[in-house]
Amino acid sequence: MKTVVVRNIERADAAACKILTGLGVSTSHEALGRSGLMKPYMRPIWPGAAICGPAVTIMAQPGDNWMIHVAIEQCKPGDVLVVGVTADNTDGMFGDLLATSLKARGGVGLVIDAGVRDVRILTQMGFPVWSRAISAKGTVKATLGSVNVPVVCAGALVHPGDVIVADDDGVVVVPRLEAATVAEAARKREANEEEKRRRLASGELGLDMYAMRDGLAKAGLVYRDED
Amino acid sequence: MKTVVVRNIERADAAACKILTGLGVSTSHEALGRSGLMKPYMRPIWPGAAICGPAVTIMAQPGDNWMIHVAIEQCKPGDVLVVGVTADNTDGMFGDLLATSLKARGGVGLVIDAGVRDVRILTQMGFPVWSRAISAKGTVKATLGSVNVPVVCAGALVHPGDVIVADDDGVVVVPRLEAATVAEAARKREANEEEKRRRLASGELGLDMYAMRDGLAKAGLVYRDED
Amino acid sequence: MKTVVVRNIERADAAACKILTGLGVSTSHEALGRSGLMKPYMRPIWPGAAICGPAVTIMAQPGDNWMIHVAIEQCKPGDVLVVGVTADNTDGMFGDLLATSLKARGGVGLVIDAGVRDVRILTQMGFPVWSRAISAKGTVKATLGSVNVPVVCAGALVHPGDVIVADDDGVVVVPRLEAATVAEAARKREANEEEKRRRLASGELGLDMYAMRDGLAKAGLVYRDED
Amino acid sequence: MKTVVVRNIERADAAACKILTGLGVSTSHEALGRSGLMKPYMRPIWPGAAICGPAVTIMAQPGDNWMIHVAIEQCKPGDVLVVGVTADNTDGMFGDLLATSLKARGGVGLVIDAGVRDVRILTQMGFPVWSRAISAKGTVKATLGSVNVPVVCAGALVHPGDVIVADDDGVVVVPRLEAATVAEAARKREANEEEKRRRLASGELGLDMYAMRDGLAKAGLVYRDED
Amino acid sequence: MKTVVVRNIERADAAACKILTGLGVSTSHEALGRSGLMKPYMRPIWPGAAICGPAVTIMAQPGDNWMIHVAIEQCKPGDVLVVGVTADNTDGMFGDLLATSLKARGGVGLVIDAGVRDVRILTQMGFPVWSRAISAKGTVKATLGSVNVPVVCAGALVHPGDVIVADDDGVVVVPRLEAATVAEAARKREANEEEKRRRLASGELGLDMYAMRDGLAKAGLVYRDED
Amino acid sequence: MKTVVVRNIERADAAACKILTGLGVSTSHEALGRSGLMKPYMRPIWPGAAICGPAVTIMAQPGDNWMIHVAIEQCKPGDVLVVGVTADNTDGMFGDLLATSLKARGGVGLVIDAGVRDVRILTQMGFPVWSRAISAKGTVKATLGSVNVPVVCAGALVHPGDVIVADDDGVVVVPRLEAATVAEAARKREANEEEKRRRLASGELGLDMYAMRDGLAKAGLVYRDED
Repeated sequence: MKTVVVRNIERADAAACKILTGLGVSTSHEALGRSGLMKPYMRPIWPGAAICGPAVTIMAQPGDNWMIHVAIEQCKPGDVLVVGVTADNTDGMFGDLLATSLKARGGVGLVIDAGVRDVRILTQMGFPVWSRAISAKGTVKATLGSVNVPVVCAGALVHPGDVIVADDDGVVVVPRLEAATVAEAARKREANEEEKRRRLASGELGLDMYAMRDGLAKAGLVYRDED
Repeated sequence: MKTVVVRNIERADAAACKILTGLGVSTSHEALGRSGLMKPYMRPIWPGAAICGPAVTIMAQPGDNWMIHVAIEQCKPGDVLVVGVTADNTDGMFGDLLATSLKARGGVGLVIDAGVRDVRILTQMGFPVWSRAISAKGTVKATLGSVNVPVVCAGALVHPGDVIVADDDGVVVVPRLEAATVAEAARKREANEEEKRRRLASGELGLDMYAMRDGLAKAGLVYRDED
Repeated sequence: MKTVVVRNIERADAAACKILTGLGVSTSHEALGRSGLMKPYMRPIWPGAAICGPAVTIMAQPGDNWMIHVAIEQCKPGDVLVVGVTADNTDGMFGDLLATSLKARGGVGLVIDAGVRDVRILTQMGFPVWSRAISAKGTVKATLGSVNVPVVCAGALVHPGDVIVADDDGVVVVPRLEAATVAEAARKREANEEEKRRRLASGELGLDMYAMRDGLAKAGLVYRDED
Repeated sequence: MKTVVVRNIERADAAACKILTGLGVSTSHEALGRSGLMKPYMRPIWPGAAICGPAVTIMAQPGDNWMIHVAIEQCKPGDVLVVGVTADNTDGMFGDLLATSLKARGGVGLVIDAGVRDVRILTQMGFPVWSRAISAKGTVKATLGSVNVPVVCAGALVHPGDVIVADDDGVVVVPRLEAATVAEAARKREANEEEKRRRLASGELGLDMYAMRDGLAKAGLVYRDED
Repeated sequence: MKTVVVRNIERADAAACKILTGLGVSTSHEALGRSGLMKPYMRPIWPGAAICGPAVTIMAQPGDNWMIHVAIEQCKPGDVLVVGVTADNTDGMFGDLLATSLKARGGVGLVIDAGVRDVRILTQMGFPVWSRAISAKGTVKATLGSVNVPVVCAGALVHPGDVIVADDDGVVVVPRLEAATVAEAARKREANEEEKRRRLASGELGLDMYAMRDGLAKAGLVYRDED
Repeated sequence: MKTVVVRNIERADAAACKILTGLGVSTSHEALGRSGLMKPYMRPIWPGAAICGPAVTIMAQPGDNWMIHVAIEQCKPGDVLVVGVTADNTDGMFGDLLATSLKARGGVGLVIDAGVRDVRILTQMGFPVWSRAISAKGTVKATLGSVNVPVVCAGALVHPGDVIVADDDGVVVVPRLEAATVAEAARKREANEEEKRRRLASGELGLDMYAMRDGLAKAGLVYRDED
């Protein structure tokens, strides 16, 4: 495994991050052409958490949190720490001390394809974490990994500086160079949904609003009454 | 796969639904002779949700929510939408727009053997969903399925019009024609439990209340003090 | 399987339990030399639950809760009931009636490598449970097991009288005879963390506080700027 | 749960079974409109096993094989025993003695949504089993179930007398009344594939043979050379 | 975690091991009162492997195989190496070099609640392994564990010197001091089964051979013909 | 999702592929610094399969095999087809017809993070496949994906032209530009192991051969005889 720390990475456009924060994971994922999602086993440790910011990435060995200390030094205000591991693992690689340190550097949250612990304190701190598991399992500091290299986290490819959008629906990765375009597409999609929501609430059917009846009939759908 | 929409299904007795609403999943399941449960991976998206109503059923392809639009037209006030899929899937096949539409038709909840998204908004709407997963993964509208045919959902067989009881303990299916009998049995069971609860709270042991000591001895149970 | 009920077990030191209650699972697990944890699939049924007490152990057949009735008679105030099963199982082996009975005997919580039901009532009662699943599946009373023998629960070995510490981070087992030593080590560790927390909150890096830079360089870590 | 044994069930057409035997699971599943499959966790205990026959169904309690004895009496030569259980289970509910008995009655195989044991002897006997697990875990004979009622097995609905087709690709259920139609459709599909196989083997591309290029272009596919 | 190597352990009776070898896992498990089984995810890396011998136990950190080297020195001819880990793990902690070394010491097989690699060579060597996974993932030698202490392996408690019986049906642990009794019980059970096998093969039903009809009727089983 | 087909990709050095073929997955993974492995759920459909070649990559929608047809046109003799999907899926996206076509183009194998079917015929053809599942589930041709873009497959990042090494131990990805270096390192490692194997076979302990005794003692390992 490459063991390197890359400094001074390019980060995604701050304006785009701001827009995506308000729109959330599902809308961002759709605006991205239905890609970039992490697996649904990634869950927030407390409900209602919602963040958006550029990724500082870590490739770590399972059960070894040495590189998290290294990565925190590379964080700037607004960053999201993203931790991938080289084999499936649920150990508690992050707890309240690391959160205190990351928060002091301006980090806004953690996304980790492993476990997290001290979740009651993290919740009291209002520090948001999306993880694969909650586990008290302690870790070692024995083997190097890398910081700010491309990593696979929960099935998604993350480059340093990519936008991480995370909320109750999960986590999506928006490539850095597409952030502005995706933010604009997401904004339009959301505006469009407001009108739809109003019509559906008034009782109009999706079948009519989306003009689906012809397509369904052509595909062969038949209706019949119960015998 | 059969692709048909059955209209005007028979629904379970409304009075029975009303009784089962108050009694909940565990009691209904026991009253049904310990059957009819969906698998325990079916969880509510917010705690405290509790519903009961006749099923409008959907057999859908994984990752394809076309038939949900079709099914909503078939819903009447009080109905519960039940979605089975033809292969294991966690995609977010249902979100706030569909919930808005279903609610406008009087639908009281969703039970889906796949994923759901927009869970923060659904929670704010107070719209109850039991699902296998929470996922932002977008879906397509490409392949037909069926509405109001018998479906397998999370391991349970559901006929259209069967009673769906769902709460924090999971989801149980009560066959339509047995609804009244089961409601009566559940009511009796519950009444019976009140007295038991009072006796146990006062310190009486289950061993004595249920007269288990003889049976245990006969089965060969021995007591000894620690060495 | 041995079928025996052992009475009058030795219980861990009450003073040690008191100390560990305040320190929690992660600290206790570290103080124990990073061992004794149950698997992370063991989750509390309501957030914020935290208990500590000596174990009354049960080895049960999956889907059979006969021995839980037997074990409750062996409980003293402050005890934690721990249920292991002989094969993976998620059935709802424990509900509000058993909780009422256990609470009446002074039991402070349940740890079960299977399912639990009536979770809304248990939550209203403030009765804490850590389980593998929530399930309404009813159980039988057909086969004997044992009470107060060594059991494997969620991957951890539990002897009767061992200390069970459980909170939002999971469940850890502290051997009875090591309880006082571990409590003392945990107390020291916690005291030590206060100072660290303060320094990290002020912006000091873990890299410096733990003097990691030399070790990292020696292990071969290199830094470079992004190309 | 209903506890009944239904005798003298109608069985699917023998001629249709014969045709489907040769065509296998994937072809039968396609001919059925891509439905009827059991979940892919159902695997044969030895490679190369392939059977086809009408189902004698069992709904059993997990870890209880009493009803298998009951069901064997209802089997006729050529039948396949299909066992569903009321909760996820991997216990070894079937072994070499039951296989000996079933074989003596003319049964041609077992499909069980639980575990099986004595697999070395079963393999030596050439007795085919598709199961969810291999496990030596012993079972009890304590609770009734039903024989020849509709059951859910590994996610598929099976009515007594339906055709079970099973081979290295898994298990598919063909409804009894559709057996002849499906067999005919499967036969045509297979004949059709022979010609395709020959053309592809000669180097013709699927893109051309299936005339996909226009559809792909219309959907927006673009080609470019590597930078 | 205790870090100790215990030398000169007591081993189970060799005569008992010899008897259990021929009888296999399912029979031994039954003779033991249906206990002692490891979870069914433990599978042999090649079919037909069957071993029986006293356990040399290892408690290791996941992904760290240092203690396996330590343990091999403690092995005597006929021993089975049993590896438990402190958290779920699938890394390839054992390969052909360790197998060569263990075999040279007379070790007859490995049971590991983690991964194994070089499986093609191990198969060619005829070296039997039961593991949770096959994985090439490399490991480190960084943290101590223990040898010949009680360990939990795949859900079963193993004391050093206990008898490990493993074959195509899985792995069972027979406590050292019960080995002779269990071997005798297993032998009787097996003898008893020969006669049953003959009767069932001749067409006699289990219903009659085990005299089940009365019990079934008393439990309420009813027969009816299909409508 | 990007929908593009990249033609004329650079492929890894043929000489390096040749070397890695003989050395296998575990050795290649170690030579790569213990990285690049796919998750251990990727298993060969028949034992003994072993391949090595440059990757032609596909990012596909789950249950949609349209892009596999597109990708086969881009294959050259010696290539390995690698299929990632945008959400967890086990459908049978590849069968004997596609294998016939791929083989006719010179493709040497398939690595797919989904299901495969017709495994008996694929085995008879000697066509090697590593997959997550075996499933007869049919697929559609409805949504575009991409060919020869970077993809995540079973947790590993694969660029087009990277070397895929696959055998009974799993699948590892060697980056294209590192192929020659890794092949050389792997060759040395293997040469080194021959001597070790010989010494261990003669009874020398790893403890001595690797000079571990000092390190173990320094880490605090203690030996004691059984009480």
